[in-house]
Amino acid sequence: MGLRVGMVGYAFMGAAHSQAWRTAPHVFDLPLRPEMAVLCGRSAAAASAAASRLGWAAVETDWRALVKRDDVDLVDICTPGDSHAEIAIAALRAGKHVLCEKPLANTLEEASAMASAASEARAGGVRAMIGFNYRRVPALALARQLVADGRIGRIRHVRATYLQDWLVDPSFPLTWRLQRQHAGSGALGDLGAHIVDLAQYLTGDLITGVSALTTTFVGERPVPGGSGPGAVTVDDAALFLGRLGSGAVASFEATRFASGRKNQLRVELNGDGGSLAFDLERNNELWFNDRADSAGPQGFRCVLVTEPGHPYLSAWWPPGHVLGWEHTFTHEVRDLVYAIAEATDPSPSFADGLQVQRVLAAVEDSAAHDSAWTPVDQGGL
Amino acid sequence: MGLRVGMVGYAFMGAAHSQAWRTAPHVFDLPLRPEMAVLCGRSAAAASAAASRLGWAAVETDWRALVKRDDVDLVDICTPGDSHAEIAIAALRAGKHVLCEKPLANTLEEASAMASAASEARAGGVRAMIGFNYRRVPALALARQLVADGRIGRIRHVRATYLQDWLVDPSFPLTWRLQRQHAGSGALGDLGAHIVDLAQYLTGDLITGVSALTTTFVGERPVPGGSGPGAVTVDDAALFLGRLGSGAVASFEATRFASGRKNQLRVELNGDGGSLAFDLERNNELWFNDRADSAGPQGFRCVLVTEPGHPYLSAWWPPGHVLGWEHTFTHEVRDLVYAIAEATDPSPSFADGLQVQRVLAAVEDSAAHDSAWTPVDQGGL
Amino acid sequence: MGLRVGMVGYAFMGAAHSQAWRTAPHVFDLPLRPEMAVLCGRSAAAASAAASRLGWAAVETDWRALVKRDDVDLVDICTPGDSHAEIAIAALRAGKHVLCEKPLANTLEEASAMASAASEARAGGVRAMIGFNYRRVPALALARQLVADGRIGRIRHVRATYLQDWLVDPSFPLTWRLQRQHAGSGALGDLGAHIVDLAQYLTGDLITGVSALTTTFVGERPVPGGSGPGAVTVDDAALFLGRLGSGAVASFEATRFASGRKNQLRVELNGDGGSLAFDLERNNELWFNDRADSAGPQGFRCVLVTEPGHPYLSAWWPPGHVLGWEHTFTHEVRDLVYAIAEATDPSPSFADGLQVQRVLAAVEDSAAHDSAWTPVDQGGL
Amino acid sequence: MGLRVGMVGYAFMGAAHSQAWRTAPHVFDLPLRPEMAVLCGRSAAAASAAASRLGWAAVETDWRALVKRDDVDLVDICTPGDSHAEIAIAALRAGKHVLCEKPLANTLEEASAMASAASEARAGGVRAMIGFNYRRVPALALARQLVADGRIGRIRHVRATYLQDWLVDPSFPLTWRLQRQHAGSGALGDLGAHIVDLAQYLTGDLITGVSALTTTFVGERPVPGGSGPGAVTVDDAALFLGRLGSGAVASFEATRFASGRKNQLRVELNGDGGSLAFDLERNNELWFNDRADSAGPQGFRCVLVTEPGHPYLSAWWPPGHVLGWEHTFTHEVRDLVYAIAEATDPSPSFADGLQVQRVLAAVEDSAAHDSAWTPVDQGGL
Repeated sequence: MGLRVGMVGYAFMGAAHSQAWRTAPHVFDLPLRPEMAVLCGRSAAAASAAASRLGWAAVETDWRALVKRDDVDLVDICTPGDSHAEIAIAALRAGKHVLCEKPLANTLEEASAMASAASEARAGGVRAMIGFNYRRVPALALARQLVADGRIGRIRHVRATYLQDWLVDPSFPLTWRLQRQHAGSGALGDLGAHIVDLAQYLTGDLITGVSALTTTFVGERPVPGGSGPGAVTVDDAALFLGRLGSGAVASFEATRFASGRKNQLRVELNGDGGSLAFDLERNNELWFNDRADSAGPQGFRCVLVTEPGHPYLSAWWPPGHVLGWEHTFTHEVRDLVYAIAEATDPSPSFADGLQVQRVLAAVEDSAAHDSAWTPVDQGGL
Repeated sequence: MGLRVGMVGYAFMGAAHSQAWRTAPHVFDLPLRPEMAVLCGRSAAAASAAASRLGWAAVETDWRALVKRDDVDLVDICTPGDSHAEIAIAALRAGKHVLCEKPLANTLEEASAMASAASEARAGGVRAMIGFNYRRVPALALARQLVADGRIGRIRHVRATYLQDWLVDPSFPLTWRLQRQHAGSGALGDLGAHIVDLAQYLTGDLITGVSALTTTFVGERPVPGGSGPGAVTVDDAALFLGRLGSGAVASFEATRFASGRKNQLRVELNGDGGSLAFDLERNNELWFNDRADSAGPQGFRCVLVTEPGHPYLSAWWPPGHVLGWEHTFTHEVRDLVYAIAEATDPSPSFADGLQVQRVLAAVEDSAAHDSAWTPVDQGGL
Repeated sequence: MGLRVGMVGYAFMGAAHSQAWRTAPHVFDLPLRPEMAVLCGRSAAAASAAASRLGWAAVETDWRALVKRDDVDLVDICTPGDSHAEIAIAALRAGKHVLCEKPLANTLEEASAMASAASEARAGGVRAMIGFNYRRVPALALARQLVADGRIGRIRHVRATYLQDWLVDPSFPLTWRLQRQHAGSGALGDLGAHIVDLAQYLTGDLITGVSALTTTFVGERPVPGGSGPGAVTVDDAALFLGRLGSGAVASFEATRFASGRKNQLRVELNGDGGSLAFDLERNNELWFNDRADSAGPQGFRCVLVTEPGHPYLSAWWPPGHVLGWEHTFTHEVRDLVYAIAEATDPSPSFADGLQVQRVLAAVEDSAAHDSAWTPVDQGGL
Repeated sequence: MGLRVGMVGYAFMGAAHSQAWRTAPHVFDLPLRPEMAVLCGRSAAAASAAASRLGWAAVETDWRALVKRDDVDLVDICTPGDSHAEIAIAALRAGKHVLCEKPLANTLEEASAMASAASEARAGGVRAMIGFNYRRVPALALARQLVADGRIGRIRHVRATYLQDWLVDPSFPLTWRLQRQHAGSGALGDLGAHIVDLAQYLTGDLITGVSALTTTFVGERPVPGGSGPGAVTVDDAALFLGRLGSGAVASFEATRFASGRKNQLRVELNGDGGSLAFDLERNNELWFNDRADSAGPQGFRCVLVTEPGHPYLSAWWPPGHVLGWEHTFTHEVRDLVYAIAEATDPSPSFADGLQVQRVLAAVEDSAAHDSAWTPVDQGGL
């Protein structure tokens, strides 16, 4: 049986999702076979070219039409954040399953409406998932298992940084990601959202409050096309401290100004039974310190997460044959297809995405109020 | 225009090649569009199941039939080494382009016949390539560029090890890879072939002689299916020293008995202008020492080979979004398609594969004669 | 000519300083020859045993007597922080040079009085230095040079963590370091002081404000000797964000609850011209990213800081022969001896120590007020 | 009670030994207190200056006089290899304990005579030790313990490289280390001796045969002082393969031409129960793979060898406070003093040194005979 996918957007995320939809059915033994049915973009010519290159069977230029098509079962949203809510809610109401890129939305209001729409649609058997793809790095999925199994005990510290450097040069142009009306925020929503989600996912806990500062190092940048400089209206960097429900403390940093760090998402958990550490630039490795090891040869183990018993790995290559960044999307798609086929709730849900938005909102609120401690609304979750 | 591919074999290598054929046309802008036309396997049922899973349009059970089909332009050989020569030569004579997995063959005679067949077929515009896929790790392709550009000067040392550990347990069964009649040799042909090819590729030089030892640590293993133990007739490990034409010296080690090393191919080159180092378990990194750096902050640079200017990377993701092991095959397929479309010689050629076989033969010869220095036939190349 | 040293305290820091005083004159060509003259401790028997073991010529049991001795030129203070002010001020007023362990004092008032005393004594040619020994890690001294030379450009980010794990076990006893009246604070003053000093030293800038949280994970611990549990009155962990005068942002974390991290002081600076990174557990390495490198092989260089041209190294061993933790004290002593002989101001000064205390005080203040942003008094510096 | 030491030579090794003799009695609780009594060098002026700088009480200009002095109990030989035999044998016959730097001698004949002299002297309670200091790196001492405890099972592979780069520049002058009459050999005796000793020490086994090649990349170098170029008469690099008594195979490489490798001694052991790996440039770390770990989080552990339970560490600093290269000599001296006080045999003995020489002789023999397999004389050990 098939699962007909319609995707909106075909830039960076669209290409990554396409690779996932194309690959998943040939690597995993899926209960439903995804079909790359329709690609949607505003320009017919550009969308057609993209569909041809990325392997989509048909093209649509209006997302409103897409979500109503009978030959589409699932809508995959790969657009900037300012259009997520409108598309996702329409699709859910039309009875389509939805996969939506992160962040869920640019505002808390929109995110909340999306979570409500997902909740209503769920009653009708419709599934919604948010694309925090890093949950599907095998090393991080293994980390979650180890935490859930109590292997690092009670967690005391979470330390997460997501560092990139593509804005260091002040002549980099003022793209949509640097404009609040399109992107919502800067490093915070783009990078910070990932590490907030991971902190909550890996610990199985929620962030209850934050203290934050944000900064914009370069206030003006050239407008693409050339009509002089324009104002950067998002943060270049966001730093915040937090507490989790368990009493653990956490530190976060997201920036696009860390020279030499290309895509360095690092996360470390320290528990009273051990520690875990991860670096996305060495995505196949999980570092694990186990206090239960005998005293002599104790230390951080570099686990090469490529064994058949590791998450997602039995479908791939023999041990030591490493995976890449794009595989996270293939795993995401696999899990979503299973959830749809088995009528279970995919994870992370829109509610999870909303909870991340609440943390981000608290961060912005704290940063706007001299870093004052700002509780995170738990939303009755 | 299409390039219709018929593939023989569908185990580990077949799955990896399938992923490559499936992905390459959607990532790279290819001059010919590969079509996954026919999968060939002896059992119709098994081949059909594999074709369905891996995405091949049709099935053939006799490679002799496959190589004669009008609707096949290229034969991709993913079988054990003992059948390479027969299939490849037949395919070339039938005017099909050939991609053949390494090692080229199990004997020097077969390899030589294959190189001759490729040479003859070339006159008719038919292309042949051997699948030393590690030449297409972007970090190693970059290493080759740096060597060719003189960035490490005159090379003094090559140091290459390929370590795995899947035979450490003596209860691991006696599979085809442990039987000389199928596999030709053990770690030597399977792993050693890769590092010999890389040594010659990266330096742009040839190995002129070797001194070697081989060993089989576990002489008997359980026969799969259960009729008691059978003799292991290949090496478990092969170690050899060599000299290159330039006067550089080299050290090689290939083993399946290095506990904890899953797929650790390491290679280091030391030149009088700098050094390069690589580890396949961290496949996105190339370590580069440049003696031209100013004295103060000199050291090995960890180059994350994910920039648009790096080999193959402009077609993939933004900087820092890492690739995996399987991408080497996608790059291999890309380069082969270009060679066919542009009527140029693909690299590595069957002649390159033959030259590797000559080195492996010299290694076995030396090991059989108390490690005596054994010149490598240069074959008039 | 000799420089007669009297040292107060002979525990961990006393042993480290002894090793430094003993070694420095034999490794460096010093303008004054230090003599290990007098060791001072309250118990005559214990002090005598320590003097014999550590190599001090005589013993004194009252620091008040020590600071008045004519045969002592310099007083080296290795006691807990609650006695620093009294001893240091008395020694300075008695015309003795002073080397004082960090933190300068347990309270801002005491630290301020010490800085004033040092300033007054300076007029009479008396020198005072605070023992932020990590400034003398060769790799960090080299980092400072590179920053000062503009090699990483304008600094945007400072990221510093100092992680230990010796308090993870709740049965660890309630030693003096866990009691506010002796230690002043916990991880903050012990570990945080180091990273605050390094942040200011490496950037050549001052922290202008902070937002902080502190926590005590284990509130009661067994009293040594055994009269039941007692209250831990210091922080187990301190996390804070800051801004520097230049507009750079900074993140700090100090903890004794990071399982598996034994003495991991890490610091990273990101500038618009490059980055620097350091890890005390690999103390001989400085990682340097230079945006001026050509695009191809750019990356973090692992500089092994053991070359003759590197700070302090010309006196030691050939390249690649690494130094340890204790060498920082030998370098500290060397620099202090030079400052005394050449009548220059040693660095870091008591004023530098006071400035660190002001940051720590602001951290405690912010933590006590819901992480509210708290400016750091710049003290007219 | 004292142990009066007379040291011959005061260059690199002499400075390192001085630091050890000076430090050991203040760090370790020794049964005999070493006294730095006499320094011996041919030039009275130079020796006096060195004695003053390094902390020796008296000076002697003739080693023949030194070994006869009543106020000397132990002779520490830090001269080039061509004088080891004469001095050591004379000292032993004069009833002095001897510590001799490696390699034991430049010729097998001399080494054999030294071992005989040590054996004879032993009957009279006189001790002799050879300075393979890397046995006293705590991480390597721990590695030996783990091997002896069976933690890595039956050893299959030894892989050892010792890479330096100080000869890469062809204008580096023709010092004594590059002349056969003084140094015996080049990288082989200087660096190769260390890794041969470590291979035998760590495994508790002997090398039974080798196949080797050596090379001299730069045949002429400027004579210091300036009378034109002179011939380099030693090897620049030595590579060899070996077998151990147990059936394990081994690979060795020693070179001074590995650009960017300053003092990189690496050794790895692969056993059927696990593996161990070490790198001298990160001397505080031992990497340990334990096949007994549960399948999920298995990997190489990075053991920071600074815990009180690790070899030599209880006398030093708290966990995580790392040691340097020079500490190996302090540990060497400690162990020798204990052996003398307790009338036990110090290790490594002159017989161990002789056995290393036999391996080096076999290496040179094999290299001179087209790498032919060359058994190592086991000398009736």
